[in-house]
Amino acid sequence: MTHMRPKLPLHAMNAGDGPHSYVQNSSYQRGVVDVAKPEIEEEIATKLDIKNLPNRFCIADFGCSTGHNSFPAIQIITEAINQKYKSPKITSESLEFSVFFNDVITNDFDTLFRSLPPDIHYHAAAVPGDFHCRLLPEYSLHFAYSSWSLQWLTAVPEAVADSGSPEWNKGEILYSRDRKEVCDAYLDQFEKDIESFLESRAVEMVSEGLMALLVPAVPDFWNPESEYTIPSDVNLLGSCLVDMAEKVTNIPTTISCVK
Amino acid sequence: MTHMRPKLPLHAMNAGDGPHSYVQNSSYQRGVVDVAKPEIEEEIATKLDIKNLPNRFCIADFGCSTGHNSFPAIQIITEAINQKYKSPKITSESLEFSVFFNDVITNDFDTLFRSLPPDIHYHAAAVPGDFHCRLLPEYSLHFAYSSWSLQWLTAVPEAVADSGSPEWNKGEILYSRDRKEVCDAYLDQFEKDIESFLESRAVEMVSEGLMALLVPAVPDFWNPESEYTIPSDVNLLGSCLVDMAEKVTNIPTTISCVK
Repeated sequence: MTHMRPKLPLHAMNAGDGPHSYVQNSSYQRGVVDVAKPEIEEEIATKLDIKNLPNRFCIADFGCSTGHNSFPAIQIITEAINQKYKSPKITSESLEFSVFFNDVITNDFDTLFRSLPPDIHYHAAAVPGDFHCRLLPEYSLHFAYSSWSLQWLTAVPEAVADSGSPEWNKGEILYSRDRKEVCDAYLDQFEKDIESFLESRAVEMVSEGLMALLVPAVPDFWNPESEYTIPSDVNLLGSCLVDMAEKVTNIPTTISCVK
Repeated sequence: MTHMRPKLPLHAMNAGDGPHSYVQNSSYQRGVVDVAKPEIEEEIATKLDIKNLPNRFCIADFGCSTGHNSFPAIQIITEAINQKYKSPKITSESLEFSVFFNDVITNDFDTLFRSLPPDIHYHAAAVPGDFHCRLLPEYSLHFAYSSWSLQWLTAVPEAVADSGSPEWNKGEILYSRDRKEVCDAYLDQFEKDIESFLESRAVEMVSEGLMALLVPAVPDFWNPESEYTIPSDVNLLGSCLVDMAEKVTNIPTTISCVK
């Protein structure tokens, strides 16, 4: 087994805890964790079904950034697992949690380590690397978690930036449902990426393990004129960038969704 | 299990790769790895005796700093293990290595991650924390390695800095054999620290595991007048510091060996 190097350099969230850092600019992502809490607890209580509970229970967060949104998620997961296995049927006095915090190799893990809550009840470790590749030993992972990370693609589909292609996205940073060719080009890339992610986890996870994947999505029936949701923000951002590009030179009118 | 916070802040080696970094100032420590290579290979070949070889083989380096001296050591260890278990008796095609790089929480792990050789054949993870405490799950570690780290004490014995005490070290940064009281004060602290280290590893290691601990030491029969060894450097450093302290104010004449 040799670790794969990514085709493109993958970008980390902004480091540190300054005004432009991810720490200071991800309250929305923190809200996602809070919203998902009851569902994660319910799924662990009803669907996690590890018959031979080991002493060591491994959890990994794929796309942890500097950790401040990861720590509360890990707390939710460990408390729910403790709650489940502290039932009278199974004694789990010696259950130890190992938590692997994963993000790309350029991620600011030092800030994550220095931000670790002082009262954690698990062994913390950082695993650097692209989560579309293998990162952990086979059959070692009991719970895989990822929030607000899987939507980042490993590459921009070439055709959407090619003005001669039917998939050309006309310099916009968002693709709408009525541009089926553009949608399909992005969808193809997403399918490749999510397949790589799932294939890697399939080797790493124990067979009775559980995954919680929180991914932003557009509602099936979304009217951008009357409803405000994730793409509304991105449309606004795209519009600002196009305006800026018209006023000054050397500002790209297309930003990629490569992480 | 709750992680212990150290009594004192423990200091990391200098970060980054600039002129004052540990990377640029630890060629001696690198030499130690090269000198130990044949002994590590010999011990693995003859003494490592894991009867039920798992698919996953865990190695940890306690005190890895920014990794540049750790990577060649890990390569020596993994190659020797592969060599041993590729004998015709045991098939180990699926043997996977997990390597845990440990150092104090303020260590520059980001430089370590960015310096990982591109062709590593193991899963790399960083584990931050004081190695005098528990860091890994019980019965999870097959090979523990530590080089040039265990000599750093968690505290300076109070008496050696107290001019009213028989253990007072007279402002020097080194204790010589003829100052038995001073030696004993440092020895007591070392015994406490090494005991904490070994007690933690005793829980973490599998029963047939192996440890390689490289620790600087003074030869039993050392004549400082005629032989040049580790304390010669420290004596020279101490002499320089005392000279500096006599010329300027606000320079401490005692430096501690707290890491």
